[in-house]
Amino acid sequence: MIDLNLISTLPLTQSDKAEAKKELKKIRKELFLLQNKFYANGNYSMLIILQGLDTSGKDGTIRHAFSGMNPQGVQVKSFKKPITDELKHDFLWRVYPHFPEKGMIKIFNRSYYEDILVPTVNGALSNEVLQHRLNLINELEHHLLANNTLILKFYLHISADEQIVRIDERKTKPHKRWKYAKEDELIPNQWDDYQRAYHTILNSCDHLPWHVIPADKRWYRNYSAAKILNEQLEKLKLEYPKSIK
Amino acid sequence: MIDLNLISTLPLTQSDKAEAKKELKKIRKELFLLQNKFYANGNYSMLIILQGLDTSGKDGTIRHAFSGMNPQGVQVKSFKKPITDELKHDFLWRVYPHFPEKGMIKIFNRSYYEDILVPTVNGALSNEVLQHRLNLINELEHHLLANNTLILKFYLHISADEQIVRIDERKTKPHKRWKYAKEDELIPNQWDDYQRAYHTILNSCDHLPWHVIPADKRWYRNYSAAKILNEQLEKLKLEYPKSIK
Repeated sequence: MIDLNLISTLPLTQSDKAEAKKELKKIRKELFLLQNKFYANGNYSMLIILQGLDTSGKDGTIRHAFSGMNPQGVQVKSFKKPITDELKHDFLWRVYPHFPEKGMIKIFNRSYYEDILVPTVNGALSNEVLQHRLNLINELEHHLLANNTLILKFYLHISADEQIVRIDERKTKPHKRWKYAKEDELIPNQWDDYQRAYHTILNSCDHLPWHVIPADKRWYRNYSAAKILNEQLEKLKLEYPKSIK
Repeated sequence: MIDLNLISTLPLTQSDKAEAKKELKKIRKELFLLQNKFYANGNYSMLIILQGLDTSGKDGTIRHAFSGMNPQGVQVKSFKKPITDELKHDFLWRVYPHFPEKGMIKIFNRSYYEDILVPTVNGALSNEVLQHRLNLINELEHHLLANNTLILKFYLHISADEQIVRIDERKTKPHKRWKYAKEDELIPNQWDDYQRAYHTILNSCDHLPWHVIPADKRWYRNYSAAKILNEQLEKLKLEYPKSIK
């Protein structure tokens, strides 16, 4: 059982920060090599699902934790609010074309989990439909795993206080201003509701657990995400194939 | 007039190598920042076309010169031999869906230029069709430029001798062996023919000239490619937008 209330209480110090930044540099070098073996090996594909409240740092994680690898083997797909054709199909329809080929690492910036989160928060999802969607997702992820698609699910956990700080930064920091929209002011009102919705999701996928990453400190978030990916790739103990496939 | 015979004669020393490696590190840091502004700005898109003979290092250039930027803003599309549906359309049909959105940098690993190169080398392209295709490509690139897609065309130039060395490396170096196929032995036989075909292409796009990169030394190739991209992005003098688009 994942209890989000325990997450932000991690004690983190300035020396942790220096240490983590140094470690991240090392990890990124390792990732550069591991990803190349993963690509050459071609037996697996990797799906990284990034979820988290607005301002939790999904974009930043991609930029700081997952850059540095060969762009030929890493792809990012962002899922926005579903539109037109997408609404005329079931909620998983638009997702299928974006699953990674063998050898590739695909990062989903948001995902099909939004189709549980948003309608739950908006009160538009009955318990029955919620359960139905969760079942479909579990089956889908099972199917992917059975076909050698490894799945890493990251939930970036940001506190209500830090969320307010970050929305403010969008207004005050010149390099963030382009991200600011008036509606951002309403985001904090939904913090509680999203916590509840995530609580349901995080505790309903026991066979493929989420990695819950404390995201109030950017450096800790980046370090954790990169470290987890690194460990997963290392576990495969891949070597370069002896000949072409 | 580009004369490929002059390219490989560049005098390069060991101290050039050390210098270029140091410079590349600096350039990659700058690219990390420039690409973010390019993405935030959202007025332009960038198309990088990578061409070159087999073993000239297209993959290596992507991995060493163009990694390090945010994978959310950089995409790679490799074009292989056209198949099935693609053959039932004109040679540009399959390319269109892959042009970059605004804010994105798209790298074409090979491109529509292959549809001139390969049939020319195989003797299957009349002069008339060759000219027709070149015209269509010129018009296409004009159209892209007119729509704020910046285009960087790189031709990686490898000498006949170095090509033979590299095919040999595929057999002898454990981390390269997965790239080796028996047909590779035939590649050097076509070196001359490809030179002639490239000569035609490089000298028929005067309005949007190619960057010819001497590619016998990997470190020089990586440094040059990254430097040219960096200069192009710098020239735009982009700043972060003051508000969301």
